[in-house]
Amino acid sequence: MKRLLLTYTLALFLLPVKAGSGEKLSPADYVNPFIGTTNFGTTNPGAVCPNGMMSVVPFNVMGSADNKYDKDARWWSTPYEYHNCFFTGYSHVNLSGVGCPELGSLLLMPTTGELNVDYKEYGSRYKDEQASPGYYTNYLTKYDVKTEVTATPRTGVTRFTFPKGKSHILLNLGEGLTNESGAMLRRVNAQEIEGVKLLGTFCYNPQAVFPIYFVMRVNKVPQQTGYWKKQRPMTGVEAEWDPDNGKYKLYTKYGKEIAGDDIGAFFSFDTAEGEQIEVELGVSFVSIENARLNLNKEQEGKNFEQVHAEARERWNDDLSRILVEGGTQEQKTVFYTAMYHLLIHPNVLQDVNGEYPAMESDKILTTQGNRYTVFSLWDTYRNVHQLLTLVYPERQIEMVRTMLDMYREHGWLPKWELYGRETLTMEGDPSIPVIVDTWMKGLRDFDINLAYEAMYKSATLPGAENLMRPDNDDYMSKGYVPLREQYDNSVSHALEYYIADFALSRLADALGKKEDAKLFYNRSLGYEHYYSKEFGTFRPILPDGTFYSPFSPKQGENFEPSPGFHEGNAWNYTYYVPHDVYGLARLMGGKKSFVNKLQMIFDEGLYDPANEPDIAYPYLFSYFKGEEWRTQKETQRLLAKYFTTQPDGIPGNDDTGTMSTWAIFNMMGFYPDCPGLPEYTLTTPVFDKVIIRLDPKWYKEKELVIESTRQKPDALYIDNVKIGGKKLNRFRITHDELVHGGRLEFSIR
Amino acid sequence: MKRLLLTYTLALFLLPVKAGSGEKLSPADYVNPFIGTTNFGTTNPGAVCPNGMMSVVPFNVMGSADNKYDKDARWWSTPYEYHNCFFTGYSHVNLSGVGCPELGSLLLMPTTGELNVDYKEYGSRYKDEQASPGYYTNYLTKYDVKTEVTATPRTGVTRFTFPKGKSHILLNLGEGLTNESGAMLRRVNAQEIEGVKLLGTFCYNPQAVFPIYFVMRVNKVPQQTGYWKKQRPMTGVEAEWDPDNGKYKLYTKYGKEIAGDDIGAFFSFDTAEGEQIEVELGVSFVSIENARLNLNKEQEGKNFEQVHAEARERWNDDLSRILVEGGTQEQKTVFYTAMYHLLIHPNVLQDVNGEYPAMESDKILTTQGNRYTVFSLWDTYRNVHQLLTLVYPERQIEMVRTMLDMYREHGWLPKWELYGRETLTMEGDPSIPVIVDTWMKGLRDFDINLAYEAMYKSATLPGAENLMRPDNDDYMSKGYVPLREQYDNSVSHALEYYIADFALSRLADALGKKEDAKLFYNRSLGYEHYYSKEFGTFRPILPDGTFYSPFSPKQGENFEPSPGFHEGNAWNYTYYVPHDVYGLARLMGGKKSFVNKLQMIFDEGLYDPANEPDIAYPYLFSYFKGEEWRTQKETQRLLAKYFTTQPDGIPGNDDTGTMSTWAIFNMMGFYPDCPGLPEYTLTTPVFDKVIIRLDPKWYKEKELVIESTRQKPDALYIDNVKIGGKKLNRFRITHDELVHGGRLEFSIR
Repeated sequence: MKRLLLTYTLALFLLPVKAGSGEKLSPADYVNPFIGTTNFGTTNPGAVCPNGMMSVVPFNVMGSADNKYDKDARWWSTPYEYHNCFFTGYSHVNLSGVGCPELGSLLLMPTTGELNVDYKEYGSRYKDEQASPGYYTNYLTKYDVKTEVTATPRTGVTRFTFPKGKSHILLNLGEGLTNESGAMLRRVNAQEIEGVKLLGTFCYNPQAVFPIYFVMRVNKVPQQTGYWKKQRPMTGVEAEWDPDNGKYKLYTKYGKEIAGDDIGAFFSFDTAEGEQIEVELGVSFVSIENARLNLNKEQEGKNFEQVHAEARERWNDDLSRILVEGGTQEQKTVFYTAMYHLLIHPNVLQDVNGEYPAMESDKILTTQGNRYTVFSLWDTYRNVHQLLTLVYPERQIEMVRTMLDMYREHGWLPKWELYGRETLTMEGDPSIPVIVDTWMKGLRDFDINLAYEAMYKSATLPGAENLMRPDNDDYMSKGYVPLREQYDNSVSHALEYYIADFALSRLADALGKKEDAKLFYNRSLGYEHYYSKEFGTFRPILPDGTFYSPFSPKQGENFEPSPGFHEGNAWNYTYYVPHDVYGLARLMGGKKSFVNKLQMIFDEGLYDPANEPDIAYPYLFSYFKGEEWRTQKETQRLLAKYFTTQPDGIPGNDDTGTMSTWAIFNMMGFYPDCPGLPEYTLTTPVFDKVIIRLDPKWYKEKELVIESTRQKPDALYIDNVKIGGKKLNRFRITHDELVHGGRLEFSIR
Repeated sequence: MKRLLLTYTLALFLLPVKAGSGEKLSPADYVNPFIGTTNFGTTNPGAVCPNGMMSVVPFNVMGSADNKYDKDARWWSTPYEYHNCFFTGYSHVNLSGVGCPELGSLLLMPTTGELNVDYKEYGSRYKDEQASPGYYTNYLTKYDVKTEVTATPRTGVTRFTFPKGKSHILLNLGEGLTNESGAMLRRVNAQEIEGVKLLGTFCYNPQAVFPIYFVMRVNKVPQQTGYWKKQRPMTGVEAEWDPDNGKYKLYTKYGKEIAGDDIGAFFSFDTAEGEQIEVELGVSFVSIENARLNLNKEQEGKNFEQVHAEARERWNDDLSRILVEGGTQEQKTVFYTAMYHLLIHPNVLQDVNGEYPAMESDKILTTQGNRYTVFSLWDTYRNVHQLLTLVYPERQIEMVRTMLDMYREHGWLPKWELYGRETLTMEGDPSIPVIVDTWMKGLRDFDINLAYEAMYKSATLPGAENLMRPDNDDYMSKGYVPLREQYDNSVSHALEYYIADFALSRLADALGKKEDAKLFYNRSLGYEHYYSKEFGTFRPILPDGTFYSPFSPKQGENFEPSPGFHEGNAWNYTYYVPHDVYGLARLMGGKKSFVNKLQMIFDEGLYDPANEPDIAYPYLFSYFKGEEWRTQKETQRLLAKYFTTQPDGIPGNDDTGTMSTWAIFNMMGFYPDCPGLPEYTLTTPVFDKVIIRLDPKWYKEKELVIESTRQKPDALYIDNVKIGGKKLNRFRITHDELVHGGRLEFSIR
């Protein structure tokens, strides 16, 4: 039975017709999963469902000197790179758009001819790559094998079309993107294996280790099955006598548990010309039993085509929450691909029975709703959760509940959570603005008192006991964090604390905790300590209270180390006080000085579009009457320059959708420039019409329509704006105005 | 409750009083487990129960250049060597008296001070070694820790007496005697871990792989637990960023499955001065669940002392099946230690619920009686099973049933079976003489028709399909196996087939299969082809039917390779035709020539007491009237020279008790010189009185008493012999005469 892919008739109405086909284009048709797959975008073209645990990704970053990028030859964080050429299998469960290597294991590879289990030798060049939401295919030139993959939320399915002859399917547990090693597997029957592989050490945190469990099935009885294991190098007599010394040894007769650093399983077949074999692989982070449960529940009775159709349907359902009209084909592609990237992480962690691994614990708990994982919060607190709050509130509320459950389980809200591990990557206290922002926007179906308790804890606990704010002693007593080691990121730490404390002060105020509100608000202004009149930027402070010298605001470009600043320099951080823009302007000598210097940052290439600290800079112009055009101009310029339909069409790591979300907001016409504050700065929309389908459970309106009228074809600047038919006398809009306004009308000159 | 160790009152009567103690000495008191622990005896002083799956052995063959012998620096097959000095833990489940490295893993080690998981660094020198049946202890000088071990049939228990301070207990799964690697382990709770380790590749058969499952418990809640894993060496950027690159990484926060080539678990404690911690470890070859079941069933409610007392009681029960009087203390020690070595292998394979891994299969089956494993049949078919048949018939019959079950499961009787794997070590068809010998001696409670089917199969199947006799085509068509490769052991193969076929012909005859009997008997005489008149020895034959040249009967001494002969030379094999001694004598030119040449072999040092092919040579004299004194003289000489109470008191590999059994028979006064033939050659007993307690279920007599009267203190030769009071007119006795005779009386001149 072929199911209708689009469930929203609205979508059918709005979307254009595929050229010559007579069929309507669906949002998924616009998605190009190759966008961001080079230039360190670190997205990938693999098959995945929205917020799915499983992704099945062509792995092409090891095994051949012909590859441009090798995972072990440099800092490398993605299983796929557009310009590489050597395919060594499909990796199951991957991260999209991150900056540290992790996951990307359970490598599934078809080969033909003589069995060879050395990935350096069995890898193949490929051609005919295609990808769309929930589907990827290529053709392995070495083997004359077509490969196709699709996915359910927790399982993958792969279809290999083999030539006539001896064919093999390999599952390699020894390699992958992760730096953790070690796996165990076990034959269940001739067509099924199960096992566990160790993952973790994300961003080289050696203790952030966790297991992935799996069950894999082939849909044809193989002629032979077995394992391999790379043998440890031996010396002396031992080496003389062991024929497998240092080599990949094949285990042809052994079918119980095998374990080791570098193991795998093979299935060998005699295939007819064009014979297709499908491989199902289910995973769980709880147990092998749950991996099997996930596989049975999500794939039983379905073949490849059915799984693919359902995956695509899920994408169209989700993507069509926002429908756009006007703009170019390219802009629609950029937009829906950005939406696609938004919806990859955080992803569900729980199995179909609700079980999940508790935070930083060996316990298994059961959740009612969705339990999410992969919280890259230093990134996503800036805009991702704001977009989810607006468009996918049912997900955002469950993410907040997940964060609170993490606090219940572990005693801390997350910072950079990965499959139940707090990796402590990047800095700050980013759960605070996320939760406050959500609550301020009316999504309040969670325990705000518990949330406040958790936030208060990280804001006030001494540094030695404080997982979130290790330098809280200095911060609380001095109002800033001095530089205590050459490259300790102290200024970046403090800037994050200020923003978090500002959000916390707003919540405290709303909860009637006036004393707390005052305390945290005052703290949030401590950024002033860092302002150096000499340089007109923030500048690290030494423990004795004097500024760090010698100082250059440019030090830290291109990810070189910089005293006090993390992944950036003083220019990338100095304007990051979104909660006290006017205060900062006063420090800088007033509006003019503020605006000129900010414009100079853009004009002289001091703005880094590829990383988060300065991505809210363009909106700061709009705080000053008459300067809003600069916001509109810079956002359009940056959009056009850095967000394209090409593989390098994301400026740097997508950061689990943060860069993509920057584009989405800007293309629609508004941006949440201050996390925790339920407000947006207006930007010039690129579409003529945007329909955001609101969820009536959370917002009483069914939709928000954004309409733009351009006074000339290349109109760039906002002339005037109406919300709900009434003129808006500013270039800023509150969340309430937006969601209750029904219609936001831009006139663009 | 202290239980009486000796259950046979008879034993109490017979055994001498411990000097000054007033206590009776038990047989276990005579056992010195250090005998055979150097000079390649490959026995060990570890704790084990009779025929127990578990042995707990001090592992001292790796990690330090101070050791005389290192397991990886030469061919090495034992976990313990008397002259080594560097202890790296207790290995659980070990082989005793074998010539190939295997098992000897699950290394349990106590340390103190800072945690260190590198065995090269955490190993310790030791002193104060003591061992007795079911018990071993030493004192680790580096750590001031006393260690003690004991065992049940399937579990071990270790008691560490720690000093005050920081103490650790390590379980190392990365090292061991086995050449197979890979393990998985999992924390069950703070005091319990479970897991699996791969073993196998005995004698470098790469496919003879099998798992050992275990559960380990400590009886005190540790302060900290964790794992370690040696990290794979990395290169490039990966290496720069991974702080554990190539090192032993500690996993302090992770408690789920860990897997890898080189992993382990640690438990850390704060101990008081003299604090004792006990560690229980149960194993299974079926599953982790069964390992736990074994542990619970065999150790629940028992402390170290109770387990030790029970182990000792088991030994005394079994050892006192034979009681001896007279002889020296040293002779009793040699005798009971040999009995002790006899009763180590084969050992039980099934768990307490009867489950065991089926032969060469992943299936789990359930046995009613005992399922045995570790059948080193090329060795043990010569005398071990003959002694078991006489003294431990309930075990021998279950071993035969086990062998038949292996045929049912795998299609073949065993050759060298190890934990469900046919390792195909050494040559021949040794199950045939074992089963025939057992049946001929009246132990017939097994399916003889199935046994015949199995024997007939290996005797008649073409070589290509024949696991037992790969060169059966030549053997069947030519009557011998020609040398087809330089060192193919062809003569040794054929000699084994002759003996097997002789036994098979006897069984065929007894079963009324006269044609088969004739066929196999005729085949058994094919040895004549190999006799070279030129050299007076057997000599390899080339495929064209001519003798191999150039030929030296001495080539093959000291385990150097020898064309046609395995682990020996022509001298060690030429007289190995125990089933046709007179025929061989005819070939050699008659009795005189036969006897003179045989005597020359002994006189000129051509006899190798350290390996099996020629160990039945001394009895051949007794086939010739008037020459029997030579048998008596040589056996006494060899006994005195090679079987002593010293660590080197076994001449070469004990071969799972074969060498020890040679001593036992000779010390009692009879030896089964022709496997399959229910007869013994008489030798001069060393004891005044030997009581063999027969099992009334199998033999209607309750005991066999062997009494010796010496006409002078140094009497050496048998003057006359009576059985059941009647004079025996030969130096040979049938099994029936022996077991029904009641009393065998020697008068020695």
